[in-house]
Amino acid sequence: MDTSTTKIKVAIIGGSGYGGSELLRILLFHPGVEIVFVTANEHAGRPVGDVHRNLLELTELCFSSMPTSVSEFDGIDAVFIALPHGHALEIAPRLPSGVKVIDLSGDFRINDVEAFREYYGLVHAGDIQKEFVYGLTETSRPVISNARRIANPGCFATATILALAPLASAGLLSGSRIVVDAKTGSSGSGAKPAANTHHPQRSNSFYAYKPFLHQHVPEIEQHLSSLGGFNGMTFMTHSMPVTRGIFASCYVQLPYEIEIDLPELYRSAYEHSFFVRIVEGSPDINWVKNTNFCDIAVHGRGRDFVVFSAIDNLVKGASGQAVQNLNLMFGLDETTGLRLTGSNP
Amino acid sequence: MDTSTTKIKVAIIGGSGYGGSELLRILLFHPGVEIVFVTANEHAGRPVGDVHRNLLELTELCFSSMPTSVSEFDGIDAVFIALPHGHALEIAPRLPSGVKVIDLSGDFRINDVEAFREYYGLVHAGDIQKEFVYGLTETSRPVISNARRIANPGCFATATILALAPLASAGLLSGSRIVVDAKTGSSGSGAKPAANTHHPQRSNSFYAYKPFLHQHVPEIEQHLSSLGGFNGMTFMTHSMPVTRGIFASCYVQLPYEIEIDLPELYRSAYEHSFFVRIVEGSPDINWVKNTNFCDIAVHGRGRDFVVFSAIDNLVKGASGQAVQNLNLMFGLDETTGLRLTGSNP
Amino acid sequence: MDTSTTKIKVAIIGGSGYGGSELLRILLFHPGVEIVFVTANEHAGRPVGDVHRNLLELTELCFSSMPTSVSEFDGIDAVFIALPHGHALEIAPRLPSGVKVIDLSGDFRINDVEAFREYYGLVHAGDIQKEFVYGLTETSRPVISNARRIANPGCFATATILALAPLASAGLLSGSRIVVDAKTGSSGSGAKPAANTHHPQRSNSFYAYKPFLHQHVPEIEQHLSSLGGFNGMTFMTHSMPVTRGIFASCYVQLPYEIEIDLPELYRSAYEHSFFVRIVEGSPDINWVKNTNFCDIAVHGRGRDFVVFSAIDNLVKGASGQAVQNLNLMFGLDETTGLRLTGSNP
Amino acid sequence: MDTSTTKIKVAIIGGSGYGGSELLRILLFHPGVEIVFVTANEHAGRPVGDVHRNLLELTELCFSSMPTSVSEFDGIDAVFIALPHGHALEIAPRLPSGVKVIDLSGDFRINDVEAFREYYGLVHAGDIQKEFVYGLTETSRPVISNARRIANPGCFATATILALAPLASAGLLSGSRIVVDAKTGSSGSGAKPAANTHHPQRSNSFYAYKPFLHQHVPEIEQHLSSLGGFNGMTFMTHSMPVTRGIFASCYVQLPYEIEIDLPELYRSAYEHSFFVRIVEGSPDINWVKNTNFCDIAVHGRGRDFVVFSAIDNLVKGASGQAVQNLNLMFGLDETTGLRLTGSNP
Repeated sequence: MDTSTTKIKVAIIGGSGYGGSELLRILLFHPGVEIVFVTANEHAGRPVGDVHRNLLELTELCFSSMPTSVSEFDGIDAVFIALPHGHALEIAPRLPSGVKVIDLSGDFRINDVEAFREYYGLVHAGDIQKEFVYGLTETSRPVISNARRIANPGCFATATILALAPLASAGLLSGSRIVVDAKTGSSGSGAKPAANTHHPQRSNSFYAYKPFLHQHVPEIEQHLSSLGGFNGMTFMTHSMPVTRGIFASCYVQLPYEIEIDLPELYRSAYEHSFFVRIVEGSPDINWVKNTNFCDIAVHGRGRDFVVFSAIDNLVKGASGQAVQNLNLMFGLDETTGLRLTGSNP
Repeated sequence: MDTSTTKIKVAIIGGSGYGGSELLRILLFHPGVEIVFVTANEHAGRPVGDVHRNLLELTELCFSSMPTSVSEFDGIDAVFIALPHGHALEIAPRLPSGVKVIDLSGDFRINDVEAFREYYGLVHAGDIQKEFVYGLTETSRPVISNARRIANPGCFATATILALAPLASAGLLSGSRIVVDAKTGSSGSGAKPAANTHHPQRSNSFYAYKPFLHQHVPEIEQHLSSLGGFNGMTFMTHSMPVTRGIFASCYVQLPYEIEIDLPELYRSAYEHSFFVRIVEGSPDINWVKNTNFCDIAVHGRGRDFVVFSAIDNLVKGASGQAVQNLNLMFGLDETTGLRLTGSNP
Repeated sequence: MDTSTTKIKVAIIGGSGYGGSELLRILLFHPGVEIVFVTANEHAGRPVGDVHRNLLELTELCFSSMPTSVSEFDGIDAVFIALPHGHALEIAPRLPSGVKVIDLSGDFRINDVEAFREYYGLVHAGDIQKEFVYGLTETSRPVISNARRIANPGCFATATILALAPLASAGLLSGSRIVVDAKTGSSGSGAKPAANTHHPQRSNSFYAYKPFLHQHVPEIEQHLSSLGGFNGMTFMTHSMPVTRGIFASCYVQLPYEIEIDLPELYRSAYEHSFFVRIVEGSPDINWVKNTNFCDIAVHGRGRDFVVFSAIDNLVKGASGQAVQNLNLMFGLDETTGLRLTGSNP
Repeated sequence: MDTSTTKIKVAIIGGSGYGGSELLRILLFHPGVEIVFVTANEHAGRPVGDVHRNLLELTELCFSSMPTSVSEFDGIDAVFIALPHGHALEIAPRLPSGVKVIDLSGDFRINDVEAFREYYGLVHAGDIQKEFVYGLTETSRPVISNARRIANPGCFATATILALAPLASAGLLSGSRIVVDAKTGSSGSGAKPAANTHHPQRSNSFYAYKPFLHQHVPEIEQHLSSLGGFNGMTFMTHSMPVTRGIFASCYVQLPYEIEIDLPELYRSAYEHSFFVRIVEGSPDINWVKNTNFCDIAVHGRGRDFVVFSAIDNLVKGASGQAVQNLNLMFGLDETTGLRLTGSNP
């Protein structure tokens, strides 16, 4: 594919939130992509740089309203949907079948009808959900490359699955006791002000929320099960007083002690994955912020393992991985437009 | 007054915001005060410690609704009003005349009808406003002691006036060019979530707002004028990414050079003011947070002076000073219940 | 004991660090205590308020040098030692036997000679260590009341043990799989600047450290074992980008499912403990900062329990608990001088 | 110049600090540059990605020692010196005359021998300093393009001069009273831990420092004087509790009132400057962090003007501007390799 002459024409539905903000930051400078339109009903007609002031004078794109006719998608190759849970359920089925779709919400991630109802409080999409491939890039490149519809993973799910996938594939999660203690920054709650993201409260806080009930549990369990034996886990979410980042501490107790070179297992599993870096000691959200990297460290003592993973919740945990999937779907190198470099400090 | 037997009976109108929160933190442990009731319509019936979780299990007080009858103020000695601008204008005139009133809003601070309309967009209270004494404690103890109604100063105004009052009283502001560059923490915007206090935005931000138009300008000018010659100033407000604190940098250029021992002028002016500390170098909001102190440093070079002041916007800049005024009005030592100690770090 | 006439005479050895800073903040206003001297060799002769600027003008106390003669402890009732690990090992044995000692370091917490060497890299104190009582107040009031020497618990240990003690006492830890994911603020690393507390690095970071090897492990295991059956745990420490606070997420998987009212178990266990508050949902470090409270929430799902606890690492996790122990040792109400109120926000 | 075949060969002297860190982040991905070596004596031999973990696996470059022989600069086109003040004074004179030099320190910025001694406490470089061009790109493109030696501006100086240059060039600073209230993030103090950047202290602090004495004063005055009439200013520096960013509030009082369209004056002045954006209301350090932008807003009321400017101290305030100057010196578009995009949030 000659990206200089034939760019992928994309539309972004939902460009005013943080998912849309990051899609814009990445796609505006992606050498193989042209953004045809980006919607934000409440900002329709306004320049993108007025709303996302980091993009001021970097694009002449303006927000448009949600298309009211299917014909507005003529010529569009791919659509990103970056809306709160529940909206893509209605929008996706109406999109032209020739348009590839990457949905950043949880609407199409869950196979189990009952689990979806329980965790999301929504009615499952039914058969149409089967058309969606779960877009955890590193574990699923072949199916993603051939997919027409992608259910992009959740931020906690991405950090957790990348941390545990090598163990799952090696059959080491079967019969193991797993505890995942996951922490997120405030941007994970979205761009809309709320009590839990009010600066005076959040700045000096750390707390747990939704004990045992976070909606990313079913997608983690579903995907890890597909990779190897898996018998459930305890998953707990916490709020950190930073803007960006997910840090997952994953504790695995094997039913028996084994001889294994853990770091080597991980290095080997991610040998061809540019965006996963196996580090010593501990990853740090500081070193992955604003990037598509997932940094992982692993330690063992007897039959107890701990795996730490760190991502930027808005990049590898959302929009970056969405673009990584777009690249695969259109035959580009998966790192195209995504070699975002973090900074020190 | 024997505080052990005859406590001051107070009511707090508006107990759910940060002003109310700090009044409760202070007054619940004030040896000379009994809180008879505290209102918060949206939380009526709920224990105070459920809303202000710092007070959990420290009080059995519950929020009540706004009184609908004057008789509910029977036996009340003093009322604090801690509501957004505009509400006290309606409430204060209806309170029994025997009840002392301390209003934390800007409703009764401004003498000039036109200035009040311009900066607050509200109709001036008229004659009743004349009953209110401006409650900047350190400059006005005698009138406060005898007052029946107090207009408690704004947070920016407190930091600025305390920084400039010794110069005003010494006649050094007359003909001087004054620039005040003031900065506030996020709690100054109140307890209600809003775009400018959304944690992901505010955490790494610093910006100016309301250039030339902040509503504390008229009260600063009015009060400094009453202390000595004063010919206006440039006053600018900025937002800091911290929860608490006001830092004011006050630049004064005299029309001529004079010989003066500035630190000595300040030490002398505040010799009997427990809550004003003259420091070397610079004050730091870190050293006054959670306390009623105002730390001040002053430097000169030729005819250029700079005065730095730091307060906690919710304590000396609001509720702490309100209680300091209450103490004076009821003949108590002004530090009673207010010897809150800051911490390191 | 008549505190107004017979105050406890205390000395603080090591007053320049954060432990010493918080001891001073508390003890200077403790109605039953008189600080006779506080040492800080590098600041000897300087006013306390020059070093801990929160205390400026609140005390006339100056730092002194470390006593060189035992006679300098004449008249002293109690000594707090707030020095880095290893120093109290040398100092404590030389103190007059009539003086009560509360050591805030780890020097005398560990009974096991080998474990002490392994985790601290120091030579165990030997028999003299047996004179020290482990000062986790809520679990050990009777022995603390009669103690002459206290090994004050570590911050992580305090949060973890208070979270798990009711389960230990109920026999529910026996045979259970336990994972503790603990997080600390930056003040836990002390007052001395270092790479891991350099503001540009720490502000946006979250990372794990010392996997499986934190020095608080042996004291937690030793003390929980003394309360009930206990078969080890996985304990992991992390760094949060806040100044104060410990948050511990404690995961307990029982060997079998049982019927139990968990919140009731906890409420009952801490019924007479003023400083432990059982809360709904999750505790938050924001609500305990600057106070001696430990807030705890507990949730269960089948045979999986999770207990969250939050403390201020410098207060309940260090100096506050030390004073709480002092109170018990001298027959005072344990809350004397410790009813520090947190703030909102 | 064909950048694909003939890259500029650069060396970085001092690659372990934040200036060096940002030079590496930019230059490693600059299409027209090849980094031949980067020195850091204390890390010699270590991979760059081990020290700046944001660059892990993004480069195979290792740190080298400071060259001991001039021949090691054979083939080098340009050298960046990113060392603390005082070092370039010794290094620059020894570099081969054919090598272009960009020094990020203050060593060669000041023409006045006495001012240099007063503000830096160092001996002036003498005649060799005259070879250095002050590298404030937007005001000095022609001389920079032809320069062999660049004294790259300080961070405060960049923010202040860009804010005031249009007024200076329009002759509006002559006779005006100027106050600059400038604020910086903690990375401005460098990568070495110190008391003023200790996380527990800095996180909740705001304070002023070096009143009237900051070393950027002479370079600001010298450069503004060269642009137009200028009669001195009051310049004050403050510390903000963020990692990155400079915010300058510049107050100008003209000797008389004039009719002028201020925003238009600024838009026109920076019409051809990609990296200066004139914004409404106020700039915010949040919108320029990690980028080479300087955002400016200007307001007037009568004869009082205020200009707000915001930059990232490490990019436009140091390494980004250094690369911008390199681009000009080698005939490249000044934005080459510098279109770093900020993020929201």
